[in-house]
Amino acid sequence: MRYSQLFPKTKRDAPKDAVAANHKLLVRGGYIDQLMAGSWTLLPLGWRVVAKITQIIREEMNATGAQEMLMPLLHPKEVWEETGRWESAAEVMYQLDNFGLAFTHEEVVLDLVRKHLESYLDLPIKIYHFSTKFRNEARATGGILRGREFLMKDLYSLHASEEDFWKYYEEVKQAYLKIFKRVGLDVIVTEAAGGVFTGNHTHEFQVAASSGEDVIYVDPKTGTGINKEIFAGEEKDYKKVQAIEVGNIFSFGTYYSEKMGVDFTDKDGTKKPVWFGSYGIGQTRLMGAIVEIFHDDKGIIWPGSVAPFKYHLVGLNGKGEDVYKKLGDDVLFDDRDVSAGEKFADADLLGCPIRLVVSDKTGDKIEAKRRDSEAIKLIDIASLLD
Amino acid sequence: MRYSQLFPKTKRDAPKDAVAANHKLLVRGGYIDQLMAGSWTLLPLGWRVVAKITQIIREEMNATGAQEMLMPLLHPKEVWEETGRWESAAEVMYQLDNFGLAFTHEEVVLDLVRKHLESYLDLPIKIYHFSTKFRNEARATGGILRGREFLMKDLYSLHASEEDFWKYYEEVKQAYLKIFKRVGLDVIVTEAAGGVFTGNHTHEFQVAASSGEDVIYVDPKTGTGINKEIFAGEEKDYKKVQAIEVGNIFSFGTYYSEKMGVDFTDKDGTKKPVWFGSYGIGQTRLMGAIVEIFHDDKGIIWPGSVAPFKYHLVGLNGKGEDVYKKLGDDVLFDDRDVSAGEKFADADLLGCPIRLVVSDKTGDKIEAKRRDSEAIKLIDIASLLD
Repeated sequence: MRYSQLFPKTKRDAPKDAVAANHKLLVRGGYIDQLMAGSWTLLPLGWRVVAKITQIIREEMNATGAQEMLMPLLHPKEVWEETGRWESAAEVMYQLDNFGLAFTHEEVVLDLVRKHLESYLDLPIKIYHFSTKFRNEARATGGILRGREFLMKDLYSLHASEEDFWKYYEEVKQAYLKIFKRVGLDVIVTEAAGGVFTGNHTHEFQVAASSGEDVIYVDPKTGTGINKEIFAGEEKDYKKVQAIEVGNIFSFGTYYSEKMGVDFTDKDGTKKPVWFGSYGIGQTRLMGAIVEIFHDDKGIIWPGSVAPFKYHLVGLNGKGEDVYKKLGDDVLFDDRDVSAGEKFADADLLGCPIRLVVSDKTGDKIEAKRRDSEAIKLIDIASLLD
Repeated sequence: MRYSQLFPKTKRDAPKDAVAANHKLLVRGGYIDQLMAGSWTLLPLGWRVVAKITQIIREEMNATGAQEMLMPLLHPKEVWEETGRWESAAEVMYQLDNFGLAFTHEEVVLDLVRKHLESYLDLPIKIYHFSTKFRNEARATGGILRGREFLMKDLYSLHASEEDFWKYYEEVKQAYLKIFKRVGLDVIVTEAAGGVFTGNHTHEFQVAASSGEDVIYVDPKTGTGINKEIFAGEEKDYKKVQAIEVGNIFSFGTYYSEKMGVDFTDKDGTKKPVWFGSYGIGQTRLMGAIVEIFHDDKGIIWPGSVAPFKYHLVGLNGKGEDVYKKLGDDVLFDDRDVSAGEKFADADLLGCPIRLVVSDKTGDKIEAKRRDSEAIKLIDIASLLD
């Protein structure tokens, strides 16, 4: 991609109200644009990052045997009334007269499954989608970390037995750990309360960050955490940590299935309600969390797996066309007629893993520098293509 | 994918209210499931088809130099008031007190662009997204052809001059023709009225189908059409055709830009409003239209480019595992313990391009049959992998 053609360009100044690093840097870099409080357009660069995150999540979900699909966003009131959440979750749910906007999909997925579920032979069912979620957030701050509208992967699993449920719950937990590792994050598996989802405890995946709005207590022996909201305060050795929640998994038992009549005929011929769980990761929040962790005072430092481009090629003195054509699709080529200083500053702000410079001075060689290092190497194109 | 594990299975009966072929066959095949009138879950098979359609559209959009991004669905009332459409389009737009749900994105994309547009050097801008659209449809019938909620690709282009605008408009028209060709459809480029979008005439892409709800008049000399809504009735030789609209492109001139103050500084130093157009293809409607065209009394007959799987492998007498493992990801393997008749009927209903059968009778060979032919061939696995 030629930077001269990319919409839009970087901005010198962060929004006046921006406090969080992800807010400042993603807006300045042209990754996101605010439509209104808590509502963001993913600009072409931001979309590339989210698409890479999405693909990583997809691969790990598919590896658990889950099947991708897509459920609607406008939900009939009646389905939400079956569980009582039309009223109990009214504060977070945007509601029209007869419809609610999806803030999660437990009711809708159960309504779907009960139409297609007959016997234990149909179980387990593991289905997920990537879709928009809406939440009526009074406090939509923190850049892209907390929004009225955001992207989320939500997986739902249904099982014939408690044993099969917990086996898969653990499998998803491991898949989540792989996902977070692949995007460069160290997460702390944390026990927490279930909010509008469940009275049971749940597991959150938290990333330590001074800018995080959650407080968790971490057991130094196991490395696992307990969310402040359920921390008993007796565990003296636990370390208090500010953190950002990047994923959560919920066990519902048969609570929702019983309310909604999601039954199957088991081997013994009796009708039983299914065991049910849900598992979420917000892709846009994850992008924000990655920026909170990986930045310096000059800009973003993307982990390679989610960088919008691997290479940021700076062409000076009209050079760079040849190298650009040889490098394929994974390169952002700054072919603009602006100063070297401006190009270098933009490369640091945008944060692609490897900056390449071609100029009168570099001759046949290419100057290469990693975004997270000061060391500069002169290499030739052949070794780069290897 | 093993059919035994796929959610959900085929159904013997179509919904009682189903009239359209796409409604009957997509529901029976387990491609889609109705949440409420005009609102559909894309089940795993349906999602695979839509994902293939999406990728074809993406490739052709990118080939025009357009950049993918993602805009929000919940829109602030104020932006829609700037063009007067908060009121004039109230009938089709779901509205909360201060927000409207996206039925299109002209206002929102112009609000975005005016924040980032300074000079003619920033133009043209060609940006698109795949996203959900909501339309308050009193008459949500025809299966997945007309919904309250559906998926759509919308592209927006902004230009410094009328000349540049029409050049790109023509380029998108050609890209659309490529897309429809790739998904197997013959389209008729048709002049039409602009509805809630514009007072100008627009171009629709129509597919002749007896089940279509549009009526167009086709010029036998040029093969182009005129929608009934603007047909003058004098052109005697024109042929009346029932058709399904699968795409449309709109030229707005500077109408919206002037209303919303989307200006740029031109070469001569003067401020000018941008030339603006939008270009839509509904991916879910396209899936429905393909089924309307490509089916027989047994089921769907997918064009290869959008089929959920290339191969439908029927295993009989416990056979087929070896072949399944060799064929890679593009195969649906019916490994269930049900009758051959049921498996063959499901293969016809689901409509993958090539049915393979492995049984006691086929020995070392595989029986291969195209969905759109009665001829059966015995082939070996090596020639299949070539």
